[in-house]
Amino acid sequence: MKVLIIANGEIKDIQKVKAMLPQVDYVICADGGVRHARELGVVPDLMVGDFDSLPDEVLQEYSMAGIPIKRYPMDKDKTDMQIAVDTAIEMGASQVFLVGTFGSRWDHSYANMLMLYRLARRGIKAQILDSHNVVMVSSGKVEIEGEIGQTLSLLPLGGDVRILRTDGLKYPIVDGILPLDFPYGVSNVLVKPRAEVHVGSGWVMVVIARD
Amino acid sequence: MKVLIIANGEIKDIQKVKAMLPQVDYVICADGGVRHARELGVVPDLMVGDFDSLPDEVLQEYSMAGIPIKRYPMDKDKTDMQIAVDTAIEMGASQVFLVGTFGSRWDHSYANMLMLYRLARRGIKAQILDSHNVVMVSSGKVEIEGEIGQTLSLLPLGGDVRILRTDGLKYPIVDGILPLDFPYGVSNVLVKPRAEVHVGSGWVMVVIARD
Repeated sequence: MKVLIIANGEIKDIQKVKAMLPQVDYVICADGGVRHARELGVVPDLMVGDFDSLPDEVLQEYSMAGIPIKRYPMDKDKTDMQIAVDTAIEMGASQVFLVGTFGSRWDHSYANMLMLYRLARRGIKAQILDSHNVVMVSSGKVEIEGEIGQTLSLLPLGGDVRILRTDGLKYPIVDGILPLDFPYGVSNVLVKPRAEVHVGSGWVMVVIARD
Repeated sequence: MKVLIIANGEIKDIQKVKAMLPQVDYVICADGGVRHARELGVVPDLMVGDFDSLPDEVLQEYSMAGIPIKRYPMDKDKTDMQIAVDTAIEMGASQVFLVGTFGSRWDHSYANMLMLYRLARRGIKAQILDSHNVVMVSSGKVEIEGEIGQTLSLLPLGGDVRILRTDGLKYPIVDGILPLDFPYGVSNVLVKPRAEVHVGSGWVMVVIARD
């Protein structure tokens, strides 16, 4: 089951993100993410959050249209994004796409990125789709499809990561460590339309630049 | 010795960042960061980078003004930001401020944030100054000065972090773990103008919202 989560972050180029959206089985909007859903031409199947960033009349409008709403208190441990992610996990999602994740607030951007790790740890494939980046987190084999010449970066998440080997990259890594304090995997380049990264231990973050 | 590093990321509100700048002993511009230096009214003491994002005539102008320039090849392991950070480390900096760190490219934003960890591991206090955030990374005691009611977040970096105790926060943490896959420390609130976070093990990222 493929789930799309639309959160409340910035979507800079709405048409670009719209073109990136895959076919999914279920759409969850986290709080104000519903404003993006409308612009993306997507109808949510569920809305979750404390809705502190959404006018009541908008909420009511969606409610009257029959879209289920799960409202949580503002004082809570989970962000609206995490509530949406945990809902997807509970539903048995096999793949999750996150939209509207990054913005000017670094704490939210970073915490939203960590949701990739939360999903990956549970064996669920996940991607952040953004007009400038596609972001993935993995501890196993990562397959990257893109265009020759496209920039992509390999970054350590949660500590040093051991890369067994890469295939299809301009600067290959063969049995190398990417230390958390020396992220030299920034701005590698695809030399094949399909690249592979094999992780030995730790968690790698793959960022594909879409500029 | 206090060092300011100006990198090539986005500076959304230049006046706000200008007002945040502390008195420093030395200013390093990383590549295109020099364009921000001009707008911030700061004269660089050193320029480093591959200068792929700066027109040659600008470089020449600074060179003729007597500002030392260390040019590195484009094919290199370190980003321009890391070259600047390592220069500050080699100079014996005791405190480093990073400006122009975040932007649309997630790989650069994230790798630049990891420079806080690179500095903190070496016992050097460091802060990212941004018009929307102040970001710090620490494994020991963190002192936070701000305004009552201001939002701040405590996030795990590089794995789970144990917080011994906090003082001055609306949602205190007493001998608690912040797991990397459950970042519940987002959007805490200052209830004193001076708060403290005592870290038991691991690395905490403190993000003070400046919206």
